[in-house]
Amino acid sequence: MIKIGILGYGNIGRGVELAVKNAPDMELVAIFSRRKGLKSVSGTVCEIIDNLEAYVDKIDVLILCGGSATDLPVQGPIMLKYFNTVDSFDTHAKIPEYFDRMNQTGKNSGKLGAISIGWDPGLFSLMRVMFDSVMGGKFYTFWGRGVSQGHSDAIRRIEGVKKGIQYTVPVEETVKEVKDGLNKTYTARQMHTRECYVVAEEGADLAQIENSIKSMPNYFADYNTTVHFISDKEFDENHNKMPHGGMVIGSCFTNSKNKEITEFKLTLDSNPEFTALVLVAYARAVYRLSKCGISGALTVLDIPFKLLSPEENSVLREKLL
Amino acid sequence: MIKIGILGYGNIGRGVELAVKNAPDMELVAIFSRRKGLKSVSGTVCEIIDNLEAYVDKIDVLILCGGSATDLPVQGPIMLKYFNTVDSFDTHAKIPEYFDRMNQTGKNSGKLGAISIGWDPGLFSLMRVMFDSVMGGKFYTFWGRGVSQGHSDAIRRIEGVKKGIQYTVPVEETVKEVKDGLNKTYTARQMHTRECYVVAEEGADLAQIENSIKSMPNYFADYNTTVHFISDKEFDENHNKMPHGGMVIGSCFTNSKNKEITEFKLTLDSNPEFTALVLVAYARAVYRLSKCGISGALTVLDIPFKLLSPEENSVLREKLL
Repeated sequence: MIKIGILGYGNIGRGVELAVKNAPDMELVAIFSRRKGLKSVSGTVCEIIDNLEAYVDKIDVLILCGGSATDLPVQGPIMLKYFNTVDSFDTHAKIPEYFDRMNQTGKNSGKLGAISIGWDPGLFSLMRVMFDSVMGGKFYTFWGRGVSQGHSDAIRRIEGVKKGIQYTVPVEETVKEVKDGLNKTYTARQMHTRECYVVAEEGADLAQIENSIKSMPNYFADYNTTVHFISDKEFDENHNKMPHGGMVIGSCFTNSKNKEITEFKLTLDSNPEFTALVLVAYARAVYRLSKCGISGALTVLDIPFKLLSPEENSVLREKLL
Repeated sequence: MIKIGILGYGNIGRGVELAVKNAPDMELVAIFSRRKGLKSVSGTVCEIIDNLEAYVDKIDVLILCGGSATDLPVQGPIMLKYFNTVDSFDTHAKIPEYFDRMNQTGKNSGKLGAISIGWDPGLFSLMRVMFDSVMGGKFYTFWGRGVSQGHSDAIRRIEGVKKGIQYTVPVEETVKEVKDGLNKTYTARQMHTRECYVVAEEGADLAQIENSIKSMPNYFADYNTTVHFISDKEFDENHNKMPHGGMVIGSCFTNSKNKEITEFKLTLDSNPEFTALVLVAYARAVYRLSKCGISGALTVLDIPFKLLSPEENSVLREKLL
């Protein structure tokens, strides 16, 4: 049995807990958090983060379930000194820097860290590399319809906003063009729209909130954004989930005239729970590669699929190839 | 530059020729065939198969473009004695046996062969293993709408048939159920229908041809099959392409209630030309792995995606991860 630890008990941490419990070849040793007196859903031992040291020999892979903004850049390199790790670091622009730090740390400690694991970065990255390598044509990534945590947070920071959530939505006509192999270049606005649902504080200036959202640089200004003011009750009833998903679509022409279209699509009721499933499959790969003496940092691009499965490679060849 | 040779100059061989010509890091050395006096589309040197020996030091990877029924089981193990190889061996039931023979041959010769490369087996296999490893739920493979070579051949062997082609078509309602996460078990008949277009010889007994097709065991008897008799002209005009494709769809529930759906879809105007693109990307991986001293046989499940791309891994992390 592969002995797993979880660091961070938010939505992803709880998803990992469920996924490890369902894995035939894994055992959940403990859940670590900054909070004292935490109780876990599955009854697994909960420890405060300071007690991690005592588990150095008791855990094969520590799954880091913190956020990319502040948790992982600090926790990743510290934990990789003592544990093999898997994380979902998803700040695309900072991946090369984070990779280098994790790789250096792991090479020094003899531990292995799989970074940026999930569906994007993660499964979508695999598709982008596959489509690019095989077809050399263009490929497009669409996200949604789904909740963007970053954009929802941005809304909630605006004065007068009590609750807020943002859905990223692919522009249907553009998706259709891409699936038709049109190979055009699109602006951000042509690819996605942004739908916001806001509960305002009593007496707040709605027009000003709407304007603050729509004009916010980077987040909303470059998109067609709609803002819906709704009641507390409607918010709690209809916007309490974290669905997400999206598509990577590639296309090329062979022999000048034959159109070849490839598409990978995710439709997820729970973004964090699906991300957790991916983290757990890659924890299996990290365990195996570490046993072979591999250390440093890896991404999905470095890891063959046979290592994700609890089955033997010969069984996979027979049944799934 | 990676020096490539092609063995077999049918539809896939011609597709590989095009794909290698378009690859930034590859050079097409020669095309080998049983036929004397062959001229290649690109003007590449053509040689009869007997002259392969003279190329042992001139070719890094030999791409085997013969058929799975009779060519590859013989050619694969012979060629792997002298060359690194890539092939599209696609007789699912015989893959374990073929793998073992190729693996043993390669271990002895120090050469590396990637077997069963293409889209199914190949990219679809990757998806089946990924979906199974990550989600553990059910997954379904649909093929088509597209031309099945094996079924078309079966039609053409019937007395009175002058020309024949068969399209495999997924049953739409079943695809919809699967995408809805219903997780049911389906019979062959519930998954696909078979559409046949036949040009009959003059004076042939059409009813008998139709009956021979529909009652053919393994190929047609287990499916809802339609037979359309058409003219020579219509056949040549409308059925002269080899489109194919299909879908691998996975689904699971997380936390008992959240439905997660994953889908990989190919829509190909030219089955052999797309297969050729995949073969060429994996030839790149074979070249690199062989340079690292790896020998024997591998499948798509053993090969990380970074090896498929002409780009450096650090560039992939920066741009595509």
